[in-house]
Amino acid sequence: MTDSKDNNNQKLSGWRLKIHEIIFEADTFWGKTFDVVLLIGILLSVLIVCLESVVEIRAKYGHILKIAEWTFTIMFTAEYLARVLSVVRPSKYIFSFFGLIDILSIIPTYLGIFFAGAHTLLVLRIFRLIRVFRIFKLVRYVGEAKQLGMALRASWAKISVFLIVVISLSVLMGSLMYLIEGRENGFTSIPKGIYWAVVTLTTVGYGDIAPQTVIGQTLATIIMIMGYGIIAVPTGIVSSELVKSHKKEITTQVCHHCAREGHDIDAEFCKFCGSKL
Amino acid sequence: MTDSKDNNNQKLSGWRLKIHEIIFEADTFWGKTFDVVLLIGILLSVLIVCLESVVEIRAKYGHILKIAEWTFTIMFTAEYLARVLSVVRPSKYIFSFFGLIDILSIIPTYLGIFFAGAHTLLVLRIFRLIRVFRIFKLVRYVGEAKQLGMALRASWAKISVFLIVVISLSVLMGSLMYLIEGRENGFTSIPKGIYWAVVTLTTVGYGDIAPQTVIGQTLATIIMIMGYGIIAVPTGIVSSELVKSHKKEITTQVCHHCAREGHDIDAEFCKFCGSKL
Amino acid sequence: MTDSKDNNNQKLSGWRLKIHEIIFEADTFWGKTFDVVLLIGILLSVLIVCLESVVEIRAKYGHILKIAEWTFTIMFTAEYLARVLSVVRPSKYIFSFFGLIDILSIIPTYLGIFFAGAHTLLVLRIFRLIRVFRIFKLVRYVGEAKQLGMALRASWAKISVFLIVVISLSVLMGSLMYLIEGRENGFTSIPKGIYWAVVTLTTVGYGDIAPQTVIGQTLATIIMIMGYGIIAVPTGIVSSELVKSHKKEITTQVCHHCAREGHDIDAEFCKFCGSKL
Amino acid sequence: MTDSKDNNNQKLSGWRLKIHEIIFEADTFWGKTFDVVLLIGILLSVLIVCLESVVEIRAKYGHILKIAEWTFTIMFTAEYLARVLSVVRPSKYIFSFFGLIDILSIIPTYLGIFFAGAHTLLVLRIFRLIRVFRIFKLVRYVGEAKQLGMALRASWAKISVFLIVVISLSVLMGSLMYLIEGRENGFTSIPKGIYWAVVTLTTVGYGDIAPQTVIGQTLATIIMIMGYGIIAVPTGIVSSELVKSHKKEITTQVCHHCAREGHDIDAEFCKFCGSKL
Repeated sequence: MTDSKDNNNQKLSGWRLKIHEIIFEADTFWGKTFDVVLLIGILLSVLIVCLESVVEIRAKYGHILKIAEWTFTIMFTAEYLARVLSVVRPSKYIFSFFGLIDILSIIPTYLGIFFAGAHTLLVLRIFRLIRVFRIFKLVRYVGEAKQLGMALRASWAKISVFLIVVISLSVLMGSLMYLIEGRENGFTSIPKGIYWAVVTLTTVGYGDIAPQTVIGQTLATIIMIMGYGIIAVPTGIVSSELVKSHKKEITTQVCHHCAREGHDIDAEFCKFCGSKL
Repeated sequence: MTDSKDNNNQKLSGWRLKIHEIIFEADTFWGKTFDVVLLIGILLSVLIVCLESVVEIRAKYGHILKIAEWTFTIMFTAEYLARVLSVVRPSKYIFSFFGLIDILSIIPTYLGIFFAGAHTLLVLRIFRLIRVFRIFKLVRYVGEAKQLGMALRASWAKISVFLIVVISLSVLMGSLMYLIEGRENGFTSIPKGIYWAVVTLTTVGYGDIAPQTVIGQTLATIIMIMGYGIIAVPTGIVSSELVKSHKKEITTQVCHHCAREGHDIDAEFCKFCGSKL
Repeated sequence: MTDSKDNNNQKLSGWRLKIHEIIFEADTFWGKTFDVVLLIGILLSVLIVCLESVVEIRAKYGHILKIAEWTFTIMFTAEYLARVLSVVRPSKYIFSFFGLIDILSIIPTYLGIFFAGAHTLLVLRIFRLIRVFRIFKLVRYVGEAKQLGMALRASWAKISVFLIVVISLSVLMGSLMYLIEGRENGFTSIPKGIYWAVVTLTTVGYGDIAPQTVIGQTLATIIMIMGYGIIAVPTGIVSSELVKSHKKEITTQVCHHCAREGHDIDAEFCKFCGSKL
Repeated sequence: MTDSKDNNNQKLSGWRLKIHEIIFEADTFWGKTFDVVLLIGILLSVLIVCLESVVEIRAKYGHILKIAEWTFTIMFTAEYLARVLSVVRPSKYIFSFFGLIDILSIIPTYLGIFFAGAHTLLVLRIFRLIRVFRIFKLVRYVGEAKQLGMALRASWAKISVFLIVVISLSVLMGSLMYLIEGRENGFTSIPKGIYWAVVTLTTVGYGDIAPQTVIGQTLATIIMIMGYGIIAVPTGIVSSELVKSHKKEITTQVCHHCAREGHDIDAEFCKFCGSKL
């Protein structure tokens, strides 16, 4: 990894290398400053899109917001071009996840000239916030994110089993409620019933559709108590996975013989080859 | 188990054996393909029933949906007959859990000719989705499902104690609210009050019935804070049970030398004395 | 304990001893049968009170329900008298927790002759259901209930710290919302605001009162995300306490020297006196 | 710490020292009594502010409440002056966190003479309740609070990663719903959409804004099921952190003989080799 990266950097000429270090990395002072400024810019530009959608604010400050939006778009366009120029293989960046997000977060403003409403898509800029984790790379945040991610990935099989059960249950309960309550009580179709079942099982409970008949309310009561137990399952899965990862966290030593990790803190001998640690 | 199964298979003639392997098992290529196709079919047929219940869609595409429903029903009927034929003792399959589900998922269409509305019962087909776990048997999903199931079964005694407490509490709180709020505020009967208490304790909170008087709202506040603590209990039970099952996953072997336990499942040498396990 | 109990039983004459064994204990066949019948009776009598509160049902079956209520009340009165007679010191039973519950669950019917509405208090009978745990004494249920209870008691200090924080937060947030939203948006007083804050923090969310102004909705958003984190705390407390109790569960051995329990599963020597286990 | 405190106390003259001990400490009988009385006073004064905001109560008992409020304010003012006088460096107390809270909880009444409505700020007095933890210092409550606080601080990095994900998700989902549902269904602006997304993700679900279109309800269903998984994460984090802290509570000492760790806090002898710890 480090070798290929050095190679890439060596291919870059003086000013391109400098721009690359500032824009793509967060190890130097200027690189970190650039990322912080970029994040503030992203947050502000998202805020502007949000404010512009409020009728009263647009009526009053519409002009200023329009100027601010264009300023940010031009700045982000310049940044995008700088990114393309300071990379050894531009096509690789352009079609990467971040490259696509970056272009998607500037195009809507230009499209907005021709198509009304297109600029609402600017909210896609919020995706650029994912870069925030790069700044934190220097700190311990990425380790924590990785641990969380690992715990979630490890429990993926369990969670997918759980999701199939929840969805099947929702379909069944939604259909039953459609049969019991019927069109006159808001359950106008099976999909509507399923929507109600999910709203209830997840304990959201809008109340826009609620059972009216005695049988419907009885069934709803049973579903709610079931939902009580069901909500415990994903929580239990994630908790136990994190407890497990904590335990694994303790293991640090590497065997001198077989160079394998994963020994317990109370281990005196390598559990794979039997040599003393 | 394997013996009796081999026996059964030997009793089946050539084509029946082949059909049995394809329909009932998921170990061969064709067996797995059949199951995947079947699952997609089940999902599509449930989707059709859902769509048919939407008035607007039925008005427009009612004819196509009717044809699709009949196509699926005929296919499922053929599959059902194939299952009956390819089994050594058909009566055993017919009255098994899956056999009953399979017949229940085709009958409603035929009943629909004579009785209007009967075909809504087709949603029972969703139960057939439980077969999905058989495909996953090959992968590690079933192990995870088993672990989840074991954790839930192990915590069943604790959860049933918890459920009795919650239900008693709901009955009591519902009756109290019926006395406090009375008919004019929506609490028209004790069952209605119990329904409200469950809606509140499970934090669903539809808002179709809500306390209006000061005393009622004070009691509701206390119930909600109690519900806060109560929801922690099933989660804690499942979490601790899963943590426990994780621990079991790890410790199994005992060292022959020092007779000490606590080795990881991937350990080959004792971590305390270094002798081979 | 066993001595004093033997003493008490010896003091009882033949038929009183027999009644005592049937009514108060669940170790013999008849004792268990009596308890099961009693529980079914309690459930039915509570169900009758519930049904009687429904206007339509009372209009139709009011007469039958009245008779059923009186039948159960007379049966429970007989049972109460039998309990008083079959106990060595009746006054001790009469003023015990169960004694008071038992008398409270029959009085309302008699009071109902003189005061209308008094018989709604019959729902207090549900408290008698707590006896259900006595039947389960024979099975492992009580052990589980004890473990749950111990975990809750052990985490009581943590939970009370948590409750003080939650209540302070609710008072503060409720007052702020009263100031921000004001009377015209449903926040008619500070207590109403506190009620709203609890409804929101516990994620119940009736929606009978909801913020209308932009500042109010912003504050509500912050409260909800805080509530997200807050709901994790009691769950975490109970989970960790139950995990801890599981760990304790593993310790079984008793030291031959000092006769103290609580050793780890991997302990070879008593941790209290140092003698070999 | 103790030295500088002794120094401070020695500088105080006779009656100032006595007042200091009563007001600022909770180790002596009078000190504890003072704190308990103070807490009751704070609770009562907050209750009065709450009651005064109820129109009906103010109309009836407004005069009494006014007198009570002034009584508490004068008492708290006297207490504040006593605190200032009995401290060696008054400026240090005045500008401390508690000093500011103390002055903020008496000023509003005086301001209320000149500005109507100012006295609603008296609810700030609830902050003074934080002192309650000082009384509990004598008991084990502070230890528990510290353990909870430590667990929360330890999991702060994980929780902040989680919060960034949740907020990004809310912004994106809110914008999508604004585009899908539009102004006519209550989603009048992107901030309103974000408000809805938070209400849904946190499972509060007021129902003041709810999706009406089929696409909107489908997206809402997906968001709710996601929210189900998401709510598991903070709970899992806190649980695992508390489990970890429990484990720490146990392991401290190392055996001098075999240098092995993992002994319980109540262990007197090494559980591995039997030598005294």
